[in-house]
Amino acid sequence: MFYHDSKLQYPVKVETPNPLFAKLLQQAIGGVEGEMRVALQYLFQAWGARGPAKYRSMLLETACEEIGHIEMLATAVALNLEGAPNETVEEAAKDPAVAAVLGGMNPRHILSTTLAAMPMDSQGVPFDASHVYASGNIAADMLANVTAESTGRMLAVKLHNYTDDPGMKDMLKYMIARDTMHQNQWLAVWEEVGGKQAHPIPNSFPQAEENQSVNYTFYGTKRDKGQPTQGAWSQGASPDGKGTFKSEWLDPMGQELGLPPAQAWQGVQQDQVGK
Amino acid sequence: MFYHDSKLQYPVKVETPNPLFAKLLQQAIGGVEGEMRVALQYLFQAWGARGPAKYRSMLLETACEEIGHIEMLATAVALNLEGAPNETVEEAAKDPAVAAVLGGMNPRHILSTTLAAMPMDSQGVPFDASHVYASGNIAADMLANVTAESTGRMLAVKLHNYTDDPGMKDMLKYMIARDTMHQNQWLAVWEEVGGKQAHPIPNSFPQAEENQSVNYTFYGTKRDKGQPTQGAWSQGASPDGKGTFKSEWLDPMGQELGLPPAQAWQGVQQDQVGK
Amino acid sequence: MFYHDSKLQYPVKVETPNPLFAKLLQQAIGGVEGEMRVALQYLFQAWGARGPAKYRSMLLETACEEIGHIEMLATAVALNLEGAPNETVEEAAKDPAVAAVLGGMNPRHILSTTLAAMPMDSQGVPFDASHVYASGNIAADMLANVTAESTGRMLAVKLHNYTDDPGMKDMLKYMIARDTMHQNQWLAVWEEVGGKQAHPIPNSFPQAEENQSVNYTFYGTKRDKGQPTQGAWSQGASPDGKGTFKSEWLDPMGQELGLPPAQAWQGVQQDQVGK
Amino acid sequence: MFYHDSKLQYPVKVETPNPLFAKLLQQAIGGVEGEMRVALQYLFQAWGARGPAKYRSMLLETACEEIGHIEMLATAVALNLEGAPNETVEEAAKDPAVAAVLGGMNPRHILSTTLAAMPMDSQGVPFDASHVYASGNIAADMLANVTAESTGRMLAVKLHNYTDDPGMKDMLKYMIARDTMHQNQWLAVWEEVGGKQAHPIPNSFPQAEENQSVNYTFYGTKRDKGQPTQGAWSQGASPDGKGTFKSEWLDPMGQELGLPPAQAWQGVQQDQVGK
Amino acid sequence: MFYHDSKLQYPVKVETPNPLFAKLLQQAIGGVEGEMRVALQYLFQAWGARGPAKYRSMLLETACEEIGHIEMLATAVALNLEGAPNETVEEAAKDPAVAAVLGGMNPRHILSTTLAAMPMDSQGVPFDASHVYASGNIAADMLANVTAESTGRMLAVKLHNYTDDPGMKDMLKYMIARDTMHQNQWLAVWEEVGGKQAHPIPNSFPQAEENQSVNYTFYGTKRDKGQPTQGAWSQGASPDGKGTFKSEWLDPMGQELGLPPAQAWQGVQQDQVGK
Amino acid sequence: MFYHDSKLQYPVKVETPNPLFAKLLQQAIGGVEGEMRVALQYLFQAWGARGPAKYRSMLLETACEEIGHIEMLATAVALNLEGAPNETVEEAAKDPAVAAVLGGMNPRHILSTTLAAMPMDSQGVPFDASHVYASGNIAADMLANVTAESTGRMLAVKLHNYTDDPGMKDMLKYMIARDTMHQNQWLAVWEEVGGKQAHPIPNSFPQAEENQSVNYTFYGTKRDKGQPTQGAWSQGASPDGKGTFKSEWLDPMGQELGLPPAQAWQGVQQDQVGK
Repeated sequence: MFYHDSKLQYPVKVETPNPLFAKLLQQAIGGVEGEMRVALQYLFQAWGARGPAKYRSMLLETACEEIGHIEMLATAVALNLEGAPNETVEEAAKDPAVAAVLGGMNPRHILSTTLAAMPMDSQGVPFDASHVYASGNIAADMLANVTAESTGRMLAVKLHNYTDDPGMKDMLKYMIARDTMHQNQWLAVWEEVGGKQAHPIPNSFPQAEENQSVNYTFYGTKRDKGQPTQGAWSQGASPDGKGTFKSEWLDPMGQELGLPPAQAWQGVQQDQVGK
Repeated sequence: MFYHDSKLQYPVKVETPNPLFAKLLQQAIGGVEGEMRVALQYLFQAWGARGPAKYRSMLLETACEEIGHIEMLATAVALNLEGAPNETVEEAAKDPAVAAVLGGMNPRHILSTTLAAMPMDSQGVPFDASHVYASGNIAADMLANVTAESTGRMLAVKLHNYTDDPGMKDMLKYMIARDTMHQNQWLAVWEEVGGKQAHPIPNSFPQAEENQSVNYTFYGTKRDKGQPTQGAWSQGASPDGKGTFKSEWLDPMGQELGLPPAQAWQGVQQDQVGK
Repeated sequence: MFYHDSKLQYPVKVETPNPLFAKLLQQAIGGVEGEMRVALQYLFQAWGARGPAKYRSMLLETACEEIGHIEMLATAVALNLEGAPNETVEEAAKDPAVAAVLGGMNPRHILSTTLAAMPMDSQGVPFDASHVYASGNIAADMLANVTAESTGRMLAVKLHNYTDDPGMKDMLKYMIARDTMHQNQWLAVWEEVGGKQAHPIPNSFPQAEENQSVNYTFYGTKRDKGQPTQGAWSQGASPDGKGTFKSEWLDPMGQELGLPPAQAWQGVQQDQVGK
Repeated sequence: MFYHDSKLQYPVKVETPNPLFAKLLQQAIGGVEGEMRVALQYLFQAWGARGPAKYRSMLLETACEEIGHIEMLATAVALNLEGAPNETVEEAAKDPAVAAVLGGMNPRHILSTTLAAMPMDSQGVPFDASHVYASGNIAADMLANVTAESTGRMLAVKLHNYTDDPGMKDMLKYMIARDTMHQNQWLAVWEEVGGKQAHPIPNSFPQAEENQSVNYTFYGTKRDKGQPTQGAWSQGASPDGKGTFKSEWLDPMGQELGLPPAQAWQGVQQDQVGK
Repeated sequence: MFYHDSKLQYPVKVETPNPLFAKLLQQAIGGVEGEMRVALQYLFQAWGARGPAKYRSMLLETACEEIGHIEMLATAVALNLEGAPNETVEEAAKDPAVAAVLGGMNPRHILSTTLAAMPMDSQGVPFDASHVYASGNIAADMLANVTAESTGRMLAVKLHNYTDDPGMKDMLKYMIARDTMHQNQWLAVWEEVGGKQAHPIPNSFPQAEENQSVNYTFYGTKRDKGQPTQGAWSQGASPDGKGTFKSEWLDPMGQELGLPPAQAWQGVQQDQVGK
Repeated sequence: MFYHDSKLQYPVKVETPNPLFAKLLQQAIGGVEGEMRVALQYLFQAWGARGPAKYRSMLLETACEEIGHIEMLATAVALNLEGAPNETVEEAAKDPAVAAVLGGMNPRHILSTTLAAMPMDSQGVPFDASHVYASGNIAADMLANVTAESTGRMLAVKLHNYTDDPGMKDMLKYMIARDTMHQNQWLAVWEEVGGKQAHPIPNSFPQAEENQSVNYTFYGTKRDKGQPTQGAWSQGASPDGKGTFKSEWLDPMGQELGLPPAQAWQGVQQDQVGK
């Protein structure tokens, strides 16, 4: 169950409203690197959690925090939109500076809302919940979470780079810091459940059953059969501690491609039908 | 540039065609855990790679391998569809076993193709390239790749569990093994670029600029202000080696939620317009 | 800001797990009539609210309640999936009853999760946030909310109809009742801001500026120019109290369709280029 | 069945072509507030109508009118695109006014069409028929229609606000007026089938079967257990005339969250498997 | 402008309602091979037509016919759904025949409508208007239309194959015949504007400006540099009558792949930053 | 199976990086007229090919070439992005030329990547594999391919028109030429399998079974029952050589629209329930 407080988690101030920055901020709300994704991801991971209960509890706590981040960003978008132009397109055409704002901002910020945030990314693509990764494998999910917080922090750093507004910079420094925490938090769980030794994921499948001749081989595909690219992945012990890397040229082991002829009821041309 | 061979990478045999298994296999082609996603992900990471060239080269090699995996799976789907029913729905209704196949299979396998694979998941949702993660940050992208290969191996394990067909089991044991390799491969690069010490990602942003009071704090959100969930994330050194975890109750630091009144040109009700 | 409780809002019990019912329940999580939609809709309406503050406050309260409903439904899906078959497709083919379950259930419930709910509808289509309606016009948004709760209650009634499980029926009776409340709640606000007299929405646009000759006319389009369909919409006072209905045959007032010829740089055929 | 006339429903004139306005107009074609949505919504409601036949007949009449509105808007978009720049990006970079147009317009208007309208919104997101609401419940569908026409009129008002072109303003005044009619039309039907007393929708479900203790209670979720927000929804008679509002703090009635442990065949980590 | 008739274009009768056939029919409504696609495609091609007016006029006529086909199919879906089961999932589980229907049908046909058609395909994926091809090049658009009617006729043939119901077979024989007409109709226009000699499309671009050394060369990509696959495309006159086919092995002409190093403000790892 | 070469298929040079041109180029990567679509389309057609093997072989060769085109375009996008602004939005606001670039470019090129290409179109809409047409009917698929290459060449011509950069113009002249080849290549196969005489597609369905009274009739839908639009489609021999065109006014042959009343369990209003 969920409760709320009418105060924001951290102050959100905008000195100089800028509709273009409002558009950029949308990426942090509804983009694949954004807060709707992590909030929903942690919720669905919590609700589907099987195994040690402490992980579910922790996931719920961070999910709540993330919903609060969407709230902060939605407020930041709305405050930046206070500067949206009310000129007609004809008036705007006379002043390149105004035209650049009217053309560059998200048109739905003026057409579909009352100068408010929407659950979409910086390009106007609606958030799509297929990006909520919740496999139920605790190690895989923790890696998904570290990844999400890594691209999330990259995004926050870039937004920080694209504004001089002191309120926005302060808010983003807070968010960058929280992403630091969350990267470490998910890494800590991944380590707790085995870290590198938890691989190959899932470790509940008997590894002896997988094909033993190809499970630690790096394959090269250079057309001239040149040496496969060498590196940490082509020799030495594998990170999971269970194998030794080698490298080989990738040659076909399978049969010639091909399927049986078609039948007329499948709607093909007569020439394709088997006799 | 790209070349091909008309032979398959590994043998694909189906002893007992099963249209329902064809539907399940589609998840490994066009699902978010599937091969189209990783093939395109490695290609776009390679094409956008900045920094050490060896990573681009290696990404291209594994991308080529993955396109070959889509080819194997597409062949496996088509071979399983050889058993698709040609009964009418009225005839099928008389035999529950046939009805279960006709109702349970992917209808587009008979309506939209000539018993062939499609670029969609097991539910018929078309593959959507928004799942191609290629941030350009080498450490973040490696984590995205380990994650993809982890859910990919989970999927292959489950498919292996849902079939008794010796050809399919053999093909899947090969794929499970390749996922083992790929998990290790991306982990090896992540370690090479710093591993846990590469965090917080991106490490090119001066960490001193982030908010120092919240960057290693786990926040609790239990409504009764009970102790935040304790674990590896609430005390001790953080995995990145740059901080010490602590935990706190999450209290609002920000202002009361609220926005200025609207203006009439925004299409609101008269009551909402500021005076 | 947001907080949570580790207990469910209302008991969720499943006596006889049924994977097919789990699929149907997904419509109430990620379908357009479902709880993710209303939870996010009320949140974004709250965050973008301009005008009287009490509406924002109320929206946040009901949004929190709705997140708790997703939680209940996610739990119900997982409990129903406890009955998911672990037979291979070959074994299932021997028993029509098992085949019907394996073919009829959502394949991603076994392939993409650990028997858990996903943010998608009953057909496996991921939730898409374009369905979050938050125009910022309080009257329009209240109508959107009544509509959502009306189709939501229809859905809950149908789910109630498709199960005999006492736990599920009890949970759904609770949800049906909450939808009764919410329909009334949004209607009460709509009435408070004017009800029928709040129309035409938006009422901040001077109605005198709209085309006065067609604003209360019902148009008929029967090809034989027969009488437009008569009813409450073709005569008498209009519900907004500002006009009188009449009905007319719809005849063209505009010019002949047609555009200027194309230019070569637009990539057309030579024949289409204007001389 | 359907017929056409080669003349437009109402004159569409553009004095000063403006590609940026063409982009904004797309919201009224393919946006969720637009004409494709209502045209298809009324058609599918008509085709699925069960109950009194006059509603089906009326829905078809207004659907035909709406297809004609798409036609008007498509013509308006094409006429506005007559002003699209044919400068190269390098030339445009020299003149900020041209650059603002080239950067601000919809690039697909020049790349994917011959200066013509597309079935997408102002952000280039293709129209998606999941927004066609046709539940088959006459009261719910009428509310969906009033809502659609309310946001539709808001959009037309805003477009009217963003142009000085006399032809465009005249066309929009016509459309604003039609939206006035349509809001009233659907409200009239809603009233005819019971209005507020038609609630809770669906009224064919015996209300006595819903949970009687929570069906007229407003729940508060303020973390400090403060009084739930008071208003028309927290006391007095409910709009449906069947209950009396009260308000309460929302406390959990359900069990602790939690699911049984996983099994190995589900692809989890060994630690998550039940013993 | 558009008008309607309350009678269907052709009789739609269903003797034995079958919810599974209703699901299959949905492909012909909202699938990429379906009627919504062609109806909208012809409308948008007409509305954007530049050049000879007769093509616009003809497109509108066939568009109207196609809207009538959606109407027929929507009626066919609803009539087939009259047989939808009203058993609970628990009851259905006792009878494999009923379970196969309840599991095999589209769940939204019972959950989201009142036994009626929806604008989606056979897998429940909503129709998406990105499939409306209207480039404005008359020759290209005619080919797009022949293609659409070809896959449309394939689909109708397959639906015809999957039913014994005399009413459905009769309706589908009508639709198959109309697709025959429409394939010929669009081919006739393509021939009228040049047929094979209209290529390469667009013919308004001076062909002398394209790279002359590769414009009639078939490239082989077999890894062993074997002979490119020979056929009508590797020798002899090209269909456009403007070149002679030859075939060659595809060798790289371009530079080594590679991009400049990144900069810190782009959120990369320190190692990727150029010095 | 697939192999690669680390050199590009054709040189990709950019003299004057232009982020706006980078946005336009994205249409050729992830747009419906773009290279991802044809690459995947030819691959899936090859993998599902039934009938003469040479077509599969040829499809694989051209698919490989197209993956190389994506690579070229991805490189071109990245090189154009070298000119992306690093000014803050506040600084940009001071210089309309910079503001036009920052507002006009794809924001995800700076926020979601390290100045690199993404698998999306020029509007930021991710590539969606539902556009991969692979019906398995060789004639229909060849037409789909000619169509794709026709709109592909239109797009390349327009991109060529919008740039003065010599490197970009040279690359596009190469691509325009390849599209010439590919249009001819697919036309050659279509002719080989019958050309116009291959219609109506599919020709394996006995044409005698389709409704013979409407299969070569052009229908008119002008509301005044005026003469159907005349042209090559209304008289004379049909292109398939199997019929003679005629034209007729379209009159309804079917029954009055209408469905049986609803039942209460379907969640309708009481008034809609049949007695």
